[in-house]
Amino acid sequence: MSTYSARQIHLVSRPAGMPEHDNFKMVEVELTPPETGEVLVKNLYMSVDPYMRGRMRADAVYAQAYGLNEVMYGGAVGEVVESADSSLQAGDIVLNGAAWQDKFVAKANTLSKLEPFDRDQLSLYMGTLGMPGLTSYVGLFKFGEPKEGETVFVSAASGAVGANVCQIAKLKGCRVIGSVGSDAKAQWLLNECGVDAVINYKTCGDLTKALADAAPDGVDVYFENVGGDHLQAALEAMNPYGRIAACGMIASYNNSEPAPGPNNLMLIVGKKIRINGFIVSDHGEMRDEFLSEMIPWIQQGKIKSRETVVDGLENAVDAFLGLFSGENFGKMVVKI
Amino acid sequence: MSTYSARQIHLVSRPAGMPEHDNFKMVEVELTPPETGEVLVKNLYMSVDPYMRGRMRADAVYAQAYGLNEVMYGGAVGEVVESADSSLQAGDIVLNGAAWQDKFVAKANTLSKLEPFDRDQLSLYMGTLGMPGLTSYVGLFKFGEPKEGETVFVSAASGAVGANVCQIAKLKGCRVIGSVGSDAKAQWLLNECGVDAVINYKTCGDLTKALADAAPDGVDVYFENVGGDHLQAALEAMNPYGRIAACGMIASYNNSEPAPGPNNLMLIVGKKIRINGFIVSDHGEMRDEFLSEMIPWIQQGKIKSRETVVDGLENAVDAFLGLFSGENFGKMVVKI
Repeated sequence: MSTYSARQIHLVSRPAGMPEHDNFKMVEVELTPPETGEVLVKNLYMSVDPYMRGRMRADAVYAQAYGLNEVMYGGAVGEVVESADSSLQAGDIVLNGAAWQDKFVAKANTLSKLEPFDRDQLSLYMGTLGMPGLTSYVGLFKFGEPKEGETVFVSAASGAVGANVCQIAKLKGCRVIGSVGSDAKAQWLLNECGVDAVINYKTCGDLTKALADAAPDGVDVYFENVGGDHLQAALEAMNPYGRIAACGMIASYNNSEPAPGPNNLMLIVGKKIRINGFIVSDHGEMRDEFLSEMIPWIQQGKIKSRETVVDGLENAVDAFLGLFSGENFGKMVVKI
Repeated sequence: MSTYSARQIHLVSRPAGMPEHDNFKMVEVELTPPETGEVLVKNLYMSVDPYMRGRMRADAVYAQAYGLNEVMYGGAVGEVVESADSSLQAGDIVLNGAAWQDKFVAKANTLSKLEPFDRDQLSLYMGTLGMPGLTSYVGLFKFGEPKEGETVFVSAASGAVGANVCQIAKLKGCRVIGSVGSDAKAQWLLNECGVDAVINYKTCGDLTKALADAAPDGVDVYFENVGGDHLQAALEAMNPYGRIAACGMIASYNNSEPAPGPNNLMLIVGKKIRINGFIVSDHGEMRDEFLSEMIPWIQQGKIKSRETVVDGLENAVDAFLGLFSGENFGKMVVKI
């Protein structure tokens, strides 16, 4: 394989329901060597995230839909291999939006040079220090606004976003309840992350009752990653003037037919609840503040990160599909 | 009937689904003449409002549930007949929370003395100048936050709250779309109130399509009085960063079994929508500002009020039930 040979994963058909391998295709391409102002980057890690499912829809709401028979994209961290721009040198580490490919050529000014706090932990920039971590921080502080002593409920609580929400809320003096889909995840949150109570939604029976039991003082802030039954239970448990930071509703992402929502939305009125949908890309101005708090927390061992690292671009589709069956534990990344 | 004889309407059983006459009973009582600090009030008008249905539930969310075999309560305007307190004299007009009875004795300091802008329009203090009017004002400005030129969608648009929302939003330079349940209501909003487009949800077919057609530039603010299909349609039509002021969801108030919610709640995330449930009683601090704007608007003919006046306390239950079948046109009041 020459220096300029690259492998890309293309979307070749739009999934109906759960995506399948046939919706994707690995394509080999020959890149053009970088011209003035451009660099050649070799990706080291890429992120797979639930929001990518939305971009596979023709009527994507979040952002532009992925084109058919084109390479997909998303967050990645790579190393500059060859540079034709004075701002970057070979060996520099760059954050980029060019996931789903092992190498690419881009204008240097579309990349974000990274001074990693630890070169052996680059994958953290896909998770705790990356988009999912910033999502946790923005959602919790800008929209959840928890006060010390309040109760915070987090769905998908061991996930890339949820685990940070849980731990940041604990650091801010809240009582934290998480919901997860396996006992191993529950144990990690309880024993390693200091979460106060964890519900395994797959085995707890009636989720509304389980949450009521876990939150005897009610829920003040709900960090919404799941939707459906989780939203229903949260509304039931919430205290007056509760806040919901609506980050995602993964329960519905692969529905081919939309599923009905909770039957207790009237509680939004009666309890004077505020709900804010948000997208992290609107809140880049909080990134410096976020990193200035998060890096010391990681260095001091106050924030734990779990990752599931899948090896090889050729396994990236499997990694992505695993997000929806809960096979990942913590942040799912692909090592390229 | 003596000066101290009063008639009261009691709740004698809790309705399952739509309330029936058997749930209520007219009771005659003999009042104790006012002692020092008290007054005897004869009510002139009382309000019937959808929120009262919530108070008939044992598990009322809004406020304390009505007691069984006790007089119900709610907003009313009355005249002092006899006073044993220096702050009020016979003939004074007082706002009170003692609806569902024609006379009552109360401490003077629990009543709010009114200097009516027009003694022949006292019933307006139950509607446009009362709780429903203030609800419109608070919901629109504090939570909807419409900007000039934006599109505001209002459900139950000819109702006591909705009609004011529509007209205030027009005065503030918005494009206004209302939804109502009869052509007569639609014509009134279009011809008398200057609303830009009105949908008759009973005859329009697919409400989501009707709203999309009526709002070619999308909806920026949704004033939610209905829930269910209306919320679904509004979410579909809303622009990014849209705001929903959630005032009520009358579609569900008489359900004996809760109905599922909209199937497109994920749009809250994708469109970064904010929803605020609210209760007007939390926002009394806006009342002076509200009246200082609203009274001139009424005097200048800029805000029109429709009322359905039902005569006689003995017909108050019918008036209340009429709220749910849409029989009222504008604010439903009972003349006592």
